[in-house]
Amino acid sequence: MILAGYECTGCFVHQINKVISIACKDFKENEKIEIFKKAIRFLSEVDFNETPPEIARKLYNFLYKITQNVDPFEKIKDETNKIAENYVKNLRLEDIDLHDCIKYAVAGNVIDFGIAGNEFDVEKIRNFNLQIDHFNEFYTLLKKSKNLLYLVDNSGEIIFDKILLKKIKFEFPEIKIIVAGRESNIINDITYKDLINLGFNLEFNVISTGYSGAGVYLDKCSDNFKNIFFSSDVIISKGQGNFETLYGEKSVNIFFALKIKCNHVSNKTKIPKGSNVFIFNKVS
Amino acid sequence: MILAGYECTGCFVHQINKVISIACKDFKENEKIEIFKKAIRFLSEVDFNETPPEIARKLYNFLYKITQNVDPFEKIKDETNKIAENYVKNLRLEDIDLHDCIKYAVAGNVIDFGIAGNEFDVEKIRNFNLQIDHFNEFYTLLKKSKNLLYLVDNSGEIIFDKILLKKIKFEFPEIKIIVAGRESNIINDITYKDLINLGFNLEFNVISTGYSGAGVYLDKCSDNFKNIFFSSDVIISKGQGNFETLYGEKSVNIFFALKIKCNHVSNKTKIPKGSNVFIFNKVS
Repeated sequence: MILAGYECTGCFVHQINKVISIACKDFKENEKIEIFKKAIRFLSEVDFNETPPEIARKLYNFLYKITQNVDPFEKIKDETNKIAENYVKNLRLEDIDLHDCIKYAVAGNVIDFGIAGNEFDVEKIRNFNLQIDHFNEFYTLLKKSKNLLYLVDNSGEIIFDKILLKKIKFEFPEIKIIVAGRESNIINDITYKDLINLGFNLEFNVISTGYSGAGVYLDKCSDNFKNIFFSSDVIISKGQGNFETLYGEKSVNIFFALKIKCNHVSNKTKIPKGSNVFIFNKVS
Repeated sequence: MILAGYECTGCFVHQINKVISIACKDFKENEKIEIFKKAIRFLSEVDFNETPPEIARKLYNFLYKITQNVDPFEKIKDETNKIAENYVKNLRLEDIDLHDCIKYAVAGNVIDFGIAGNEFDVEKIRNFNLQIDHFNEFYTLLKKSKNLLYLVDNSGEIIFDKILLKKIKFEFPEIKIIVAGRESNIINDITYKDLINLGFNLEFNVISTGYSGAGVYLDKCSDNFKNIFFSSDVIISKGQGNFETLYGEKSVNIFFALKIKCNHVSNKTKIPKGSNVFIFNKVS
């Protein structure tokens, strides 16, 4: 795992302001200031000897409590999913190959679905470059796998995840696919409930990680999830939160699909910031 | 004056990170985290019913203490002054008119002298647009003024201030010009001592405001400064910090020369964010 560093402080405060801007939109100026003060005081007491998703989990839970809003991102999640669905509505599975689908899934982690008018160009994504691309290793492993665990990340990109999952199912119908969502709402991440609402349960097996942070912190995941995790032949882990919590986990074959979004993670992994990667964390 | 608002929180935290990045460059990661935590805890206890410069003054003094660095911006101030001096070295006072000099002074408030390779184009500045421009009122008032008080702002732009001041002195040699700097170091602002080091005392009268915040908070300025302030025929106030502390002060004729840099000040004044202004706060 990757523990939080000094550079994470800016991100945590940004997230405090983001929650306040959404959950406290109609609050008075001084009420917003008071909530901000409570939140930074809470942050000043948090142990940084944890992964960023675990610190964020504590911080968000505190923010949900003091803003009296248990799911400020609910509407944004629905909207970004709808935008992403609109992007891919004309995409036919038979027109794209598995490698393209992986690029789509990583690109989904890059595109900011919150930005209106953010034009989506299927051709651009097909030409989208992965700076590290272990597709061949993935394909080789997939051919001898009996089951695959897919760890989802955010709203919006989940629609691209579905395309990749459908493609894997189409090409490898004998593989049992399990899709894991967060235990409960955290930021704009996809929960177990979201997976069901989006119909993933109709095509795949869906489970909860048992953990409500924006990552997969195995120490706090459910026994059921851990049993599935450690017995998986291959795992696809989407996004930076899952990467931060699972980086270095060498007991299973994990492919991390993400954009390296910050200096801290870049420094810890020696992968340049901004890289789009599909990287094999091979069992050793 | 303009009191701080919720939106100032992001700026204060940004400033904490800025000081840490400079003053604690060689500190260990966990030492930086501890200083950050102390600083946000301090911020969580500050009364926001003050102007942003007054809150920043308290915050910076606390940061100077906990980082054990009483002037982290010292080197940056020298560097930006040198860059600005290099920009204007070929500029001849006889080639530019007073109106241009005012544009230069406002442009100085806009240019980020910290950015290497930031090309400075004298022609561009001559065509630089002021969205509010009360130059005519200024010129009319200047013709009947016996003294002028100039309230400086940051390093870098101070070099442009000097050009404007020289031009006023050249055109109106009978006007007594007094230039006021901060009492002690605050961010990259120009202090009374800086004015002397830069030779302002050789051409103008220089004084300290008696206040060490990044503005002119009259309640905390020295009696000497206030006597000069209230007996001035015309005052030029540079930058947003001075604007925030003096906005609405109608007992003297003040011209505010600045770029409106944030939403909060824009909302309070109804001047669009990003506007470059030379605005008359007429005695009423």
